[in-house]
Amino acid sequence: MSTVLAEPRTPETRKADTLRMLATPAIDVWVATGSAAGAPYLVPVSLAWVDERAVIAVEKSSLTARNLTASRQARLAVGPTRDVVMIDAVLERAVDVVDDNALAAAYVTQADWDPRSAEGYAFLVLRPVRVQAWREANEIAGRTLMRDGTWLV
Amino acid sequence: MSTVLAEPRTPETRKADTLRMLATPAIDVWVATGSAAGAPYLVPVSLAWVDERAVIAVEKSSLTARNLTASRQARLAVGPTRDVVMIDAVLERAVDVVDDNALAAAYVTQADWDPRSAEGYAFLVLRPVRVQAWREANEIAGRTLMRDGTWLV
Repeated sequence: MSTVLAEPRTPETRKADTLRMLATPAIDVWVATGSAAGAPYLVPVSLAWVDERAVIAVEKSSLTARNLTASRQARLAVGPTRDVVMIDAVLERAVDVVDDNALAAAYVTQADWDPRSAEGYAFLVLRPVRVQAWREANEIAGRTLMRDGTWLV
Repeated sequence: MSTVLAEPRTPETRKADTLRMLATPAIDVWVATGSAAGAPYLVPVSLAWVDERAVIAVEKSSLTARNLTASRQARLAVGPTRDVVMIDAVLERAVDVVDDNALAAAYVTQADWDPRSAEGYAFLVLRPVRVQAWREANEIAGRTLMRDGTWLV
């Protein structure tokens, strides 16, 4: 914040940059979830952005899967800390990776691995409710691009 | 994971890399916390690594401060998704940024801003309980460097 900042981006530019980032091949997403007792969990996993949903593949026995199945909510971060896309999302559905070939095909098109090559994985399909994007402190204002599941721009 | 992987690092190398990363000037940390209702929260903030504690400065009214004051626990991530240091930490103490000059001096030595220039900030001093470090899938084994607050290497 002591550095000289670029001009803040327009909402339209932020949305375009956000959609481009979410569709980046072999990109990862930080997935934060909470237990019923309020214990936070956080892991990086591969991301696929499919039909405006964030799709991840995790072991069905993982803490991320268990937290999400129970609470139905996650907070996602994509990008480096000073060019972030933050997404509050709800679990739309969970499906074994071998039981949805169309989703698996979409996932492997973007991600750099195929979870069908492993045992016990499920796709979690996360529907964004709020999307925010900012780079530095001067982009905190105007950071909300989607609210209550509706794009504002 | 389809790429050719480097050889997994030794535990000693991972610990040295971890300590070097945590002490990097102007580095950020992802801070995941949970509400009492299990709602996850996640934000990137500046990190200072002081006397084996992760120190962050946040607004006292922020969700991160409120969650941490209530639950006393956070999960931290430093580094990019494919060279991560993950830290499960507990809140050791919270202090107004204007009330601890020694801590503030240590913080501004590493971080690239001074929270005393803003209003209403507190330092949260987080004591690591578990530290893990990995780059790619072949470093998942052996990723735990600290357990129950004790370095294993």
